[in-house]
Amino acid sequence: MNVTIIGGGSWATALIKILSEKNIKIKWWLRDLEAINHIKKHHHNPQYLSSVELHPSKIKPYHNLKEALKNTDWVILAIPAAFIESAISEVNPELFVGKKIVSGVKGIVPSCNMLVTDWFSKKYNVAKDQIAAIAGPCHAEEIALEKQSYLTIASEGILTAKEFAALLSCRFVKTAYINDIDGVEYAAVMKNIVAMACGITHGLGAGDNFQAVMVSNAMLEIERFVNKISPSEREINSSAYLGDLLVTAYSQFSRNRTFGNMIGRGYSVKTAQMELNMIAEGYYATKSIHEINKNLEVKMPILEFVYGVLYKNQSLLKAFEVLKEQLV
Amino acid sequence: MNVTIIGGGSWATALIKILSEKNIKIKWWLRDLEAINHIKKHHHNPQYLSSVELHPSKIKPYHNLKEALKNTDWVILAIPAAFIESAISEVNPELFVGKKIVSGVKGIVPSCNMLVTDWFSKKYNVAKDQIAAIAGPCHAEEIALEKQSYLTIASEGILTAKEFAALLSCRFVKTAYINDIDGVEYAAVMKNIVAMACGITHGLGAGDNFQAVMVSNAMLEIERFVNKISPSEREINSSAYLGDLLVTAYSQFSRNRTFGNMIGRGYSVKTAQMELNMIAEGYYATKSIHEINKNLEVKMPILEFVYGVLYKNQSLLKAFEVLKEQLV
Repeated sequence: MNVTIIGGGSWATALIKILSEKNIKIKWWLRDLEAINHIKKHHHNPQYLSSVELHPSKIKPYHNLKEALKNTDWVILAIPAAFIESAISEVNPELFVGKKIVSGVKGIVPSCNMLVTDWFSKKYNVAKDQIAAIAGPCHAEEIALEKQSYLTIASEGILTAKEFAALLSCRFVKTAYINDIDGVEYAAVMKNIVAMACGITHGLGAGDNFQAVMVSNAMLEIERFVNKISPSEREINSSAYLGDLLVTAYSQFSRNRTFGNMIGRGYSVKTAQMELNMIAEGYYATKSIHEINKNLEVKMPILEFVYGVLYKNQSLLKAFEVLKEQLV
Repeated sequence: MNVTIIGGGSWATALIKILSEKNIKIKWWLRDLEAINHIKKHHHNPQYLSSVELHPSKIKPYHNLKEALKNTDWVILAIPAAFIESAISEVNPELFVGKKIVSGVKGIVPSCNMLVTDWFSKKYNVAKDQIAAIAGPCHAEEIALEKQSYLTIASEGILTAKEFAALLSCRFVKTAYINDIDGVEYAAVMKNIVAMACGITHGLGAGDNFQAVMVSNAMLEIERFVNKISPSEREINSSAYLGDLLVTAYSQFSRNRTFGNMIGRGYSVKTAQMELNMIAEGYYATKSIHEINKNLEVKMPILEFVYGVLYKNQSLLKAFEVLKEQLV
């Protein structure tokens, strides 16, 4: 069996570490030619999770995406949603025919406000039951350390989900599978917005009591939103939803939380972006979900707090006062 | 209006700080005579939250419980559940007649495995609708700092809950009220057991990924247990339940988590107790819930993990392996 992974970051490297536990061939596409040469020579990713050993007997890095996609069974997308369009735009859609696609991305493509898997399904004409998403609370850094972790694979094609869950299960990763792909993806997008809200209010002086209240209110908000946009029976407190929120909202290392914290301390979006050398995913997600919710009209005070601060230039203190009143 | 508070610890002091915002008389019973003299002279609690100013115009400390209970409208219990029986055993039950009782304790009385409010109602013959419990995520330390916090008052008598919620609402505390007193109490008891499980597994090397999975599994376990022992429509993700769990499970300062962490690192219960100069509430709670659940037979892998380690002398590593297999 052959697996192709698209993307060179820490999550891609973590997935490769997991898959290296299995007896399969991994074709790895990276944009960065220097990284490819380093991996070929030293068997480590120079920039991300560089402690992870990348066995050349199992892993072959590619700079040509077309080559990487030939003769493969599974294609794993591990590129941030905001950049995925441009990253794979050069590919002839025929190369995806007959392959199963797994999104490790869990984001919204900003140009069309669509989930990565919906966008992919439409653009490349791959049936949704051949597409899966990886969900669950998982810092890539802890995979590098082989800390016990849990992942949930979601797909409308339950056999697709089951098959990939088996592929991803190993010594230090336990997997489960469900069919609620839209639910886990929207919840994962929302969690980045909540982590940003945690950062902003922390920057404004809120403590642990407030954060606990916000995260529990956030779960109710996520549940309302997901049940409206994709009605289904779901166990919203299982690790694919609640766990994923917790690992992000309570992480000091979350880029979304750090970004939000700078905003809460009075930095502008531009300055925070320059200082951190990135824009957190939650920044784009906030706008997308706000726009999607214009039609749905779900009550989302945490989303609107972040949107008001980031996009409507609302006074931080006034927005915080409004938020405090709306939480319970 | 007069309010009597029983107990001299940090939570009692925090409640007094909140109530000092209102125009009421506070009668405060403490066991420790030295603390009483210190408070009378210096207007600060010498041992707990000593930054909080205790205005003598509003607060009067008592060493005689009978005196403290005379001419009062509300009695607030703020003594750990394991010690409450002995603390108020001397009181003539008639002193509670016509008064409303509020439990700030949220524990189980070990001798009878009853919730504090059920035990009190039975022993002192006070109707359950005259008894309330204070729920919600609230570190006393953050009340001392006037950090925005949220509390939920629960009582079968919804007017009792509403009235006390109004009394406890102030500049930095927002309150809500519900009727699910048994639900919030059992959930609060469970959260201490979960915090202990977080500590034990952290001591065994588990990381943030695992903790996020355990806390989401814990919410499912709490929901199963509470729905079985006290069936009711409840919003289990509101701050009175989920928020309360989060503030404890994710706190580095939680005594239950610290106690568990020492167990996970190989200390015996006795050594941990000596080292920390206390036994965490979750230790007693684990035995009580285990015994209650003998009849209910709810599936509770996290409870059974902690029980096995603390009371059945199970091998830590073996118990951890079993737990890892049971989580999803």
